[in-house]
Amino acid sequence: MSAYRELAAAGLISGHVGRGTVVVDPAQHRESRAPAGGVPWPQLFAPLATALYDPALEDAMIAAARPDVISFATGQPAPECYPIATVRQLLDEALHREGARLLQYCPSEGYPPLREAIASWSQQAGIRCTAENVLVVSGSQQGLYLVARALVEPGDLVAVESPTYAGALQIFRAVGARLLPIPVDEFGMRVSLLERALEHRRPKLIYTLPTFQNPSGATLALDRRLHLLDLAARAGIPVVEDDPYRELWYDAPPPPPLAALDQAGTVISLTTVSKILFPGFRIGWIIAPWPVIRQLALVKQLVDLDTNPLMQWAIWAFLERRLLPPHLEELRRVHRDRRDLLLASLAAEANGALHCRVPAGGLYLWCELADGIRARDLVPEAARQGVAIVPGESFFVDPAQGRSFVRLNFTYPAPAALVEGAKRLGRALSALREARALLAQASSPIV
Amino acid sequence: MSAYRELAAAGLISGHVGRGTVVVDPAQHRESRAPAGGVPWPQLFAPLATALYDPALEDAMIAAARPDVISFATGQPAPECYPIATVRQLLDEALHREGARLLQYCPSEGYPPLREAIASWSQQAGIRCTAENVLVVSGSQQGLYLVARALVEPGDLVAVESPTYAGALQIFRAVGARLLPIPVDEFGMRVSLLERALEHRRPKLIYTLPTFQNPSGATLALDRRLHLLDLAARAGIPVVEDDPYRELWYDAPPPPPLAALDQAGTVISLTTVSKILFPGFRIGWIIAPWPVIRQLALVKQLVDLDTNPLMQWAIWAFLERRLLPPHLEELRRVHRDRRDLLLASLAAEANGALHCRVPAGGLYLWCELADGIRARDLVPEAARQGVAIVPGESFFVDPAQGRSFVRLNFTYPAPAALVEGAKRLGRALSALREARALLAQASSPIV
Repeated sequence: MSAYRELAAAGLISGHVGRGTVVVDPAQHRESRAPAGGVPWPQLFAPLATALYDPALEDAMIAAARPDVISFATGQPAPECYPIATVRQLLDEALHREGARLLQYCPSEGYPPLREAIASWSQQAGIRCTAENVLVVSGSQQGLYLVARALVEPGDLVAVESPTYAGALQIFRAVGARLLPIPVDEFGMRVSLLERALEHRRPKLIYTLPTFQNPSGATLALDRRLHLLDLAARAGIPVVEDDPYRELWYDAPPPPPLAALDQAGTVISLTTVSKILFPGFRIGWIIAPWPVIRQLALVKQLVDLDTNPLMQWAIWAFLERRLLPPHLEELRRVHRDRRDLLLASLAAEANGALHCRVPAGGLYLWCELADGIRARDLVPEAARQGVAIVPGESFFVDPAQGRSFVRLNFTYPAPAALVEGAKRLGRALSALREARALLAQASSPIV
Repeated sequence: MSAYRELAAAGLISGHVGRGTVVVDPAQHRESRAPAGGVPWPQLFAPLATALYDPALEDAMIAAARPDVISFATGQPAPECYPIATVRQLLDEALHREGARLLQYCPSEGYPPLREAIASWSQQAGIRCTAENVLVVSGSQQGLYLVARALVEPGDLVAVESPTYAGALQIFRAVGARLLPIPVDEFGMRVSLLERALEHRRPKLIYTLPTFQNPSGATLALDRRLHLLDLAARAGIPVVEDDPYRELWYDAPPPPPLAALDQAGTVISLTTVSKILFPGFRIGWIIAPWPVIRQLALVKQLVDLDTNPLMQWAIWAFLERRLLPPHLEELRRVHRDRRDLLLASLAAEANGALHCRVPAGGLYLWCELADGIRARDLVPEAARQGVAIVPGESFFVDPAQGRSFVRLNFTYPAPAALVEGAKRLGRALSALREARALLAQASSPIV
């Protein structure tokens, strides 16, 4: 990964990155990095805080931030679809109509009309809930953090999918959880393996992305959903359903969310507008039984008091005025085209070195590398060619399991960039193959 | 406090409260509060999460949310001064100029131009820093939470002022700190007592609100500032300077912030726009040595990825275009008048039952109750009379030390409400005095 470090040191880092990732420009402020006087800072940091650093992920993000790089490393919907004109009009209307009220503090649970609107929206997906089952949060990363803080104590076991969202692994590790990975296949989490694990072990919660999973794109089949809920209800174990991609289906609508199928009140459901509108508003929500919402609101109050009420008003208007359904239809159409374009381009450019599942929704291609190529070699080579990708290692409890996988986002780059990015990735794969061939030649016996 | 519970049960709760506080309307959604199936939720919550509940504070906030109540319980600047027209224009300009870029993810450390502008703004206060010493956060409550998470481990000792910000006590308790209270007098923290404590004990950090302290209004004198910094540098202990009120001086500018006096890089400084503009944008910042910013950014990324870039752009424009200085002048004038009006009204209405310090800045009067009246009796009686106040207990490590104190905000209510609120508080005090007199009569020997 030293190529990345060199890029960083060479100042090739623009400030704008794809995913709220730490970007540092070492060239700029040497003076302020001088040893900090009397306080031995590194010795003072709590161990959990120092365990957060994922160099592989950071390297990918640093590459993605270079202006000359095409980024397949982000997790954002097509920016060309952002309803900017509507947002301008809504924010202006909000301040005109509500004035100072939307610039004050807000209840920790959320702006009451938004909680009502979220409950109605969720009821349409079959989830039985009222406004009191809704907690508005500053994005679903915060939602998951609050859930982990409220429920997980150091040493607790947490069942996660393998692979799963890298940010979730960081959160659970930061609260001191031990992780129980359950493999995912094309029908989602292998619930029968979870069932077997539950015979001997008792996780504090089960974390799942059942629909268009990040990173694998897999969707949990209906029978497995029912099986999972049955297991959880019988064992009294909460299921945390992380569900940001549900509306982003490109072939057929997915099965109902776990929260809609749940009969026993075991599901805590997380949603965000980051993937269906845009990430900048930092608005997500949790739907859960009332005692959970109550508890999470206390933790929310502790960590940042409340969520921006002006942003909440705007999302309320999107829901209340039915602005979201037509926007989702446009997103599905645009994303479907981009998915198909990237798949076709990779088929043409990768020479069989990349095997990608066709995801039925979501934002990502999950690709297996052929010919023994490793993600940790491909990521820096791809960066040299001018394309950023995320290595598979970050998505596994045991990183070694991800070494022959990479994740490619197909929604953020414009069509021309998808085609060009696939070419660059093809060149990177060829370069690695040639290097391997040379290496094989060099190590073959001299005749 | 049962009067408050009754008000709550009677549905007298409006959704809009003064300080991001949990507000619940038990009457509304009985069904969703029914036992939640198979999961024994209360047994699952982590103990730290269950320790967060402060009934006294919540009762005050519930009262403050009633529409008929005048609230002295909040912590917001005069809403009549909110620059709403400017905000409308800036947000529209931001989306017009920057478009999708401000609706995407943002570096965890903050929007780079805002970090630059904050560094310049802070340099004007004498703080030596560059953009790399700045972390933008979602309000200074989040800032303090990140600091506590990064630096404090369970069992660590944290030195705090006595009294101090109630939310800080909650945060430090939630991360498992033991608390070392250092008394405050009219010149701020009694640093000589801290020095004595440091002979035998070694806190992980020292938390102080040196300027127009919440709740006492006291400002740490310059010689004590230097003494504190000297102690901290010699012992290698970080000083966390929580400094939201510095610009809100009403008589003369306060001494320089600790961050400006610091020679050894021991100070972590927290600031927010919540008290000098409005709280709704959820924007604050931390200034600290670079290794600390680096570490806090990792924790920030864990807890909510990043801070809303559109809001950051607007605050950047406030700083860059010099919109803040004239706004601060207006706030100082309006707040000074309100402080003097409430002091005069209380002098006329309280019949000597309330002794209030005259604060030289900030948002609060800190008042001692005379005649043995207790805050826990006054708070519900005041609510009955239609005025919300905060009991002193919430601001002390040992709540008993606060039982004869209350905190009154003088900036949020309009002038007429300040006068009427003082009358209601006067009636509440009279009622308690009469009750005490009757009690004394009843318990005197029958002749």
